[in-house]
Amino acid sequence: MPNTFGKSYKITTWGESHGEAVGVTIDGCPPGISISNEDIQFELNRRKPGQSEITTQRKENDKAEILSGVFEGKTLGSPIHISVSNTDAKSKDYDALKSLYRPSHADYTYDIKYGIRNWKGGGRASARETIGRVAAGALAKKILKQKYNIQIVGYVKSIQNLEAKVNTDTVKISDVEQNIVRCPDQDIAKIMIDKIKEIRKQGDSLGGVVELVCRNVPPGLGEPVFDKLEADLGKAVLSLPACKGFEIGSGFKGTLMKGSDHNDEFYNDNGKIRTKTNNSGGIQGGISNGENIILKAAFKPTGTIIQNQNTVTDSGKEIEFGGRGRHDPCVLPRAVPMVESMVAIVLLDHSLRHNAQNNFLD
Amino acid sequence: MPNTFGKSYKITTWGESHGEAVGVTIDGCPPGISISNEDIQFELNRRKPGQSEITTQRKENDKAEILSGVFEGKTLGSPIHISVSNTDAKSKDYDALKSLYRPSHADYTYDIKYGIRNWKGGGRASARETIGRVAAGALAKKILKQKYNIQIVGYVKSIQNLEAKVNTDTVKISDVEQNIVRCPDQDIAKIMIDKIKEIRKQGDSLGGVVELVCRNVPPGLGEPVFDKLEADLGKAVLSLPACKGFEIGSGFKGTLMKGSDHNDEFYNDNGKIRTKTNNSGGIQGGISNGENIILKAAFKPTGTIIQNQNTVTDSGKEIEFGGRGRHDPCVLPRAVPMVESMVAIVLLDHSLRHNAQNNFLD
Amino acid sequence: MPNTFGKSYKITTWGESHGEAVGVTIDGCPPGISISNEDIQFELNRRKPGQSEITTQRKENDKAEILSGVFEGKTLGSPIHISVSNTDAKSKDYDALKSLYRPSHADYTYDIKYGIRNWKGGGRASARETIGRVAAGALAKKILKQKYNIQIVGYVKSIQNLEAKVNTDTVKISDVEQNIVRCPDQDIAKIMIDKIKEIRKQGDSLGGVVELVCRNVPPGLGEPVFDKLEADLGKAVLSLPACKGFEIGSGFKGTLMKGSDHNDEFYNDNGKIRTKTNNSGGIQGGISNGENIILKAAFKPTGTIIQNQNTVTDSGKEIEFGGRGRHDPCVLPRAVPMVESMVAIVLLDHSLRHNAQNNFLD
Amino acid sequence: MPNTFGKSYKITTWGESHGEAVGVTIDGCPPGISISNEDIQFELNRRKPGQSEITTQRKENDKAEILSGVFEGKTLGSPIHISVSNTDAKSKDYDALKSLYRPSHADYTYDIKYGIRNWKGGGRASARETIGRVAAGALAKKILKQKYNIQIVGYVKSIQNLEAKVNTDTVKISDVEQNIVRCPDQDIAKIMIDKIKEIRKQGDSLGGVVELVCRNVPPGLGEPVFDKLEADLGKAVLSLPACKGFEIGSGFKGTLMKGSDHNDEFYNDNGKIRTKTNNSGGIQGGISNGENIILKAAFKPTGTIIQNQNTVTDSGKEIEFGGRGRHDPCVLPRAVPMVESMVAIVLLDHSLRHNAQNNFLD
Repeated sequence: MPNTFGKSYKITTWGESHGEAVGVTIDGCPPGISISNEDIQFELNRRKPGQSEITTQRKENDKAEILSGVFEGKTLGSPIHISVSNTDAKSKDYDALKSLYRPSHADYTYDIKYGIRNWKGGGRASARETIGRVAAGALAKKILKQKYNIQIVGYVKSIQNLEAKVNTDTVKISDVEQNIVRCPDQDIAKIMIDKIKEIRKQGDSLGGVVELVCRNVPPGLGEPVFDKLEADLGKAVLSLPACKGFEIGSGFKGTLMKGSDHNDEFYNDNGKIRTKTNNSGGIQGGISNGENIILKAAFKPTGTIIQNQNTVTDSGKEIEFGGRGRHDPCVLPRAVPMVESMVAIVLLDHSLRHNAQNNFLD
Repeated sequence: MPNTFGKSYKITTWGESHGEAVGVTIDGCPPGISISNEDIQFELNRRKPGQSEITTQRKENDKAEILSGVFEGKTLGSPIHISVSNTDAKSKDYDALKSLYRPSHADYTYDIKYGIRNWKGGGRASARETIGRVAAGALAKKILKQKYNIQIVGYVKSIQNLEAKVNTDTVKISDVEQNIVRCPDQDIAKIMIDKIKEIRKQGDSLGGVVELVCRNVPPGLGEPVFDKLEADLGKAVLSLPACKGFEIGSGFKGTLMKGSDHNDEFYNDNGKIRTKTNNSGGIQGGISNGENIILKAAFKPTGTIIQNQNTVTDSGKEIEFGGRGRHDPCVLPRAVPMVESMVAIVLLDHSLRHNAQNNFLD
Repeated sequence: MPNTFGKSYKITTWGESHGEAVGVTIDGCPPGISISNEDIQFELNRRKPGQSEITTQRKENDKAEILSGVFEGKTLGSPIHISVSNTDAKSKDYDALKSLYRPSHADYTYDIKYGIRNWKGGGRASARETIGRVAAGALAKKILKQKYNIQIVGYVKSIQNLEAKVNTDTVKISDVEQNIVRCPDQDIAKIMIDKIKEIRKQGDSLGGVVELVCRNVPPGLGEPVFDKLEADLGKAVLSLPACKGFEIGSGFKGTLMKGSDHNDEFYNDNGKIRTKTNNSGGIQGGISNGENIILKAAFKPTGTIIQNQNTVTDSGKEIEFGGRGRHDPCVLPRAVPMVESMVAIVLLDHSLRHNAQNNFLD
Repeated sequence: MPNTFGKSYKITTWGESHGEAVGVTIDGCPPGISISNEDIQFELNRRKPGQSEITTQRKENDKAEILSGVFEGKTLGSPIHISVSNTDAKSKDYDALKSLYRPSHADYTYDIKYGIRNWKGGGRASARETIGRVAAGALAKKILKQKYNIQIVGYVKSIQNLEAKVNTDTVKISDVEQNIVRCPDQDIAKIMIDKIKEIRKQGDSLGGVVELVCRNVPPGLGEPVFDKLEADLGKAVLSLPACKGFEIGSGFKGTLMKGSDHNDEFYNDNGKIRTKTNNSGGIQGGISNGENIILKAAFKPTGTIIQNQNTVTDSGKEIEFGGRGRHDPCVLPRAVPMVESMVAIVLLDHSLRHNAQNNFLD
């Protein structure tokens, strides 16, 4: 069903931005894993609004409660249920939007699909829904780290036309967390931050690209033919709000190369089979080959801006309306933990799936 | 499971390139739909190798047989089974490849994942697997056409750095089929064809981009939050062999715009709510909004080339090997029906899913 | 995944008996349906412990909170999340059971499967888990009533060797609710109640059979070949705690008949095609035929008794232990709403699935 | 989807009784398993019509062809496709049935659900569909035997009121195969055979009960709460044609016992935790406990009889018609391999699912 993702590590999110709460139920987490509220909270704090001067100033506490599936600090193998209360539900702010379709939001499409919508904020289409994803991702990251020492490092690769230089072999989370825009290239990060501050003053918004590298991924994850690892990663990332594009390895730039340049030749690295180049992005035939998985995700400029725009009401009347109040001038810094979470969920899911059949008769 | 795609219109493909046959089982097709072998065969012919001087010269008959699910020319509501025999199984050509990992193919990853592989050709990883997809897509296209008059037009947008100019509002299948490279810009098509011929002589290969437009898509298709229409389209397209990137609407270029430019303002077009621009690519909040759906898929240059390359054997020995025989210098012309098929399957699947709940109490 | 049931009306339950809460997330409920806490609460009260002198005296409030998916009293089409806090979590009562495997409970199997268990009460294996099912079933019943006027009437058919006489064409919920054992045969009900009171005094327990009739089911629900309606009903009912057997229509007694007696002949009832007898139990070839659906479910005597029993500890030591405190001498009265709920969930699920494809091209 | 069963060992069957072929695609079979056509054929022969004087005399060759997923005698990990041609398609025999609804068959319900049906024989509702199940079950049995030495022994427990005495601890397949009715109690078997011969002469039919025991099942298989092992077994068995009832362990008879008698006390059997009795039927809390799994399935008397019956046509006209030609007077002997196959599929599916999570971090 549409609110569930994954086949073996399966997450179901629920909740509207201005309902009582939002959360996630995780089915399929192996038993006996140590887990604490702090593990979850660390990642939720990276996602939450109001965390810095360049994100939205909407203040949310976003405090996770684990209501089931954990006993004396360890997972039971039964569903893990995590809930986060909605505290900043100032729905009167939204009265003006009740019958109006904000451009490039989901107001119109939800209305036409369901015949009803929670017009207080984005409802189900709000980025607040990603809280459940990030909570489930925090747990997935922890398990992957423990089992394989997988390192998942996401970061802002570009904001509009400002592009960072990043070494995917060496970039660390601490580099990323060193600044509020989550760009490990500290020089360009400063310029990015200034640019975002400037666009906020204009009441406008910016987009950009998140890049992500996974190191220490074991070879063998991914399931041909439809559940190729890149296909599941693509779906996971493209299901995030505001995401408009996805690339694995060489991506669109790879189409400019000749085969003789693009092919990743194999060599023997002291007994380990490796490739000299990594245009494949760590995946061949839908299965991880042990090289770094490298992917990119494009996020459009946020739809909410503080400028006059034309639109129509739900009765079809054309009107002009001006945004007011708080807005998020650039979703990129908060998108980093979201992309990381979805990637971690996909990798753990495929790891469990691989485990089912691997060496079954041994 | 990994060889099945879709939730309501569900396809399962099976078969290796050098096994007895390949095919597809379709579960969930509505009953009472007229269907003939010819409907299927038309699309299979667009996909098949040897169709022109710029694709691989491997000759395959690719004749579809419908073995179940159709009675007196109409679908029964029971599974539709379509099988295509493998006739060009010259597996002795492959003896030299038995213990060798071809660069940027799936030989190594299949071996490490499964501990066994059919080394005669690509086995399950061969593009031959897409026969089942194209057969199921042909049926999906026909149903969508009948129900909504949906027009799905895919075409080659670029080959390496050669990019076509195409009007997405007006481009027709007949424009696309006018030349063997399937590019509706007839001027650039000629240059593309020459370029592919030249690269073939070099024993090398080229990549490119397929663009696709769907017109007359009804608003309301797509299921938040994980089964957003763009997420399912992305997964569908990224699961095709050689696909490295996916964009919906403005894609990566959209990250260069400001929100005030990117937002698609609504207006009232004689009673129909429409958007002035279409950076959203016809999807908002994961749901179709009635505008054209526009997407792009990046295909890397084909892995098989006729040049010397370095690689390793399955025992880790480094060797040089030279490709020989037939190769496909550019997969793009044959990728067009593949992308169209996957898009048609996603749209029909979501149409059925939407139908389940829509106006349920009426 | 194991904690999810249904394909179109999909429920996921979570929670352990002595965790913070238990609940359910419903995905796939059509939008625009009126729903209130009271709708849910009515059925939860029929399920809850302590409701009468013949059930367990464990007191639970079992108050349902709808946390998402409903807006201004109507379903949104997004996931409906219902949570019930655990208030009677006197876990010190359970200290004695920490390392002991109660006979015919799930203590041993959970331990051996997961390597860990919540030993405070039944944990995930507790009948408390069925709260989520009953909540989801209450909503399903309401929708089925509104769409088809389906009447689902479950009742206690037998307690041990005491069997009720019930007319499946006419039995009403009010007949069932007239006594605390939920048996519509008022004479035998009194004897059943006395028998249960007596067995309670002995510290022992009784089993029995729930029978259920669905009237006004439209023909056409059920999906051959694996998702036959009786197969899905069987799975739904057999997944309830303590259920050991399932029959549809003639069931095991049908094996004593000859085909010429068992066959249900068709006739024309003023334009409606009907059968003279109903040994099929309203389902033929896995699809409802419009006759009453009639099924039976066997529930074993409750495992918890207040008598000395032999067992082993988790270290394999053989011991004798005596049950104490409260126990449920007979689960049957509370099983009635559980069976009804699972049946309602299956029927709504199949109704939505049927709706997806039915008259698709019209 | 309805034609697919299983979550990890996933089978999809296709084909109508009088179409070109029937078959199965198996997704999720572990790689590296030895498999031959003979393995499959042995079980298909136990299922096929015309095998003895007490089954239908319809002659079918039922020759299995493995078209994919196996390479040099071993499974590849890719889908295994098995096809069986239909050779006895004398559809002119069926002309008389074109517009007539046979009592207790699926003619009417298919027509009303789909608006179309293949009236040549039972179409998709024919027991011929079970060929795919038996083929997939043969493979599952082989794998379970190899991994755990699981012994699955099904047999006819009763025909009408004739009931066999069988020791579930010792009954062997060779006992079962010693006579054509597949009842290991050789004395009662003779009487059963005579009774079936007699009923055939009368043009009538008989039902009965299949009992099945699985020995050497490891503890730990089964997934609470909805995918309890007994729930999945129940669904699997109830999805077989003509099955009207299912029992696990004590079944309906268990409802006549008191808890103090029904509870299975644990003891320590030289270091192995076992139960003294086995009313649970080898499953507690939905998870296998290592004792024998024992289940029963009720099969109604076959619907096709050679006697005059009343029914209606598809236009609602009441008519009398007399069956003619070949009929199967008792499905029980052929149901034995069907039940065994479904049980094997469920056990292998759960074994793979368990394997995914078990000791994941070790």
